[in-house]
Amino acid sequence: MSSESVDSNGPDRTPPAVAVVDAQTPGNVGTIARAMKNFGFEELLLVDPPELDPDGEAYGFAGHAREDVLPNATELTFDRLAEEYHTIGCTAVTNEDDRNHVRFPYSTPADLAVRLPTVEAPTALVFGRERVGLTNEELARIDEICSIPAAAEYPVLNLGQAATVTLYELRSLALDADDTQLPDLERVRAPEPAIDRLYDQWGALLAELNHPAEKREKTMRMLRRVFGRADLTEREVNTLLGILRRATERPDKR
Amino acid sequence: MSSESVDSNGPDRTPPAVAVVDAQTPGNVGTIARAMKNFGFEELLLVDPPELDPDGEAYGFAGHAREDVLPNATELTFDRLAEEYHTIGCTAVTNEDDRNHVRFPYSTPADLAVRLPTVEAPTALVFGRERVGLTNEELARIDEICSIPAAAEYPVLNLGQAATVTLYELRSLALDADDTQLPDLERVRAPEPAIDRLYDQWGALLAELNHPAEKREKTMRMLRRVFGRADLTEREVNTLLGILRRATERPDKR
Repeated sequence: MSSESVDSNGPDRTPPAVAVVDAQTPGNVGTIARAMKNFGFEELLLVDPPELDPDGEAYGFAGHAREDVLPNATELTFDRLAEEYHTIGCTAVTNEDDRNHVRFPYSTPADLAVRLPTVEAPTALVFGRERVGLTNEELARIDEICSIPAAAEYPVLNLGQAATVTLYELRSLALDADDTQLPDLERVRAPEPAIDRLYDQWGALLAELNHPAEKREKTMRMLRRVFGRADLTEREVNTLLGILRRATERPDKR
Repeated sequence: MSSESVDSNGPDRTPPAVAVVDAQTPGNVGTIARAMKNFGFEELLLVDPPELDPDGEAYGFAGHAREDVLPNATELTFDRLAEEYHTIGCTAVTNEDDRNHVRFPYSTPADLAVRLPTVEAPTALVFGRERVGLTNEELARIDEICSIPAAAEYPVLNLGQAATVTLYELRSLALDADDTQLPDLERVRAPEPAIDRLYDQWGALLAELNHPAEKREKTMRMLRRVFGRADLTEREVNTLLGILRRATERPDKR
């Protein structure tokens, strides 16, 4: 049922670094650090950061990332960032077409999740300052552009929210399938023989209720569709079976 | 190239409402309102909200959603929410299996994006308070569970970030493909004849360079793979063609 378990081969390389350029608000740096830890990213790069007071908003917003991602962050210049990393600049505002390559073409985060696993170079996702984002001068020195699809009416995400969505979408670069908190639903789906017993019991109930024989097949098909979609667990099957048996046999009516 | 254009039929129904239960921090309500506007959602429901001062953090964090989503929010009781909507409770912490149904089974936001378009009832995505989230008592009254896959080590997203990721993933319920800010990359990909001219010019260059004939085919295949992946625009093709022609003809060396 879970259609999005990450590649079970898992990430076999260092996940991308996350670079924040000229953040104005310590809280946003903390929010980004928290999203990094939520989705398995570790390397935080800061260009011209605000002061990150251990008693201030950056640490306050970072959750458990206050223990590692945030104190281990590296401060560096934009020059060094552009030279040492394959840089991916995130912006809400793209150019419309290839008359101007500063903000075009773009990839979406989902595109990057497909393509980046084959890139071997050290890679950094670059997020810009609040309000104005990355400047054209910065974007011109960046290797490629990433943009989150959003409402045309108001596509500009807050800095921390943009980073959160991007890191969520790229989590397969940082987390193995077994590294998420979610139990595997496949493992608990009821075995087919149990589900077959359930349909047999429905059949018995319909017969007991004198459901018109000519409608029986169609009704059974509907029931199969309903319970097929529901991905029943064995426990659910057993509970339903008990109810249906009781409804069929009506021991209290004997 | 963009693998994630939303269904071109577009949403033909009202997108889900977003309910926030007992938020402690006005800033988080503002963050959620902003994410709603970024991804096309409109109906904000508040159960036991904090005071939302027009000069405070809720409005400060809401961006353009301060103009509509936030002032149009509806305050209601949890009882009314549970009665009037098909409720989907979002939580980082699921049960492991079906011995306890309060937090099991779960859907991921990606699962919901596939399934919800077929649900006709008024639907609300329900987000709980900071730190403790939705209580077991609340979740027991909620119709289904949604959980964002995240790092097992630290799967608990901040309230605003969890809502942002969920709304991003469900944006196809609220936005038509044409409603996003991103231009359609397909539209600007160079036509095939232009790309063929590019390969012809590469072939001419290889010949001019006396590239070994027995390797020619393999090298051309590699070039096709490289430029095939790059989704060249017509302008890029023309620029490359100019460079390659010049490299082939070397007018300065005549």
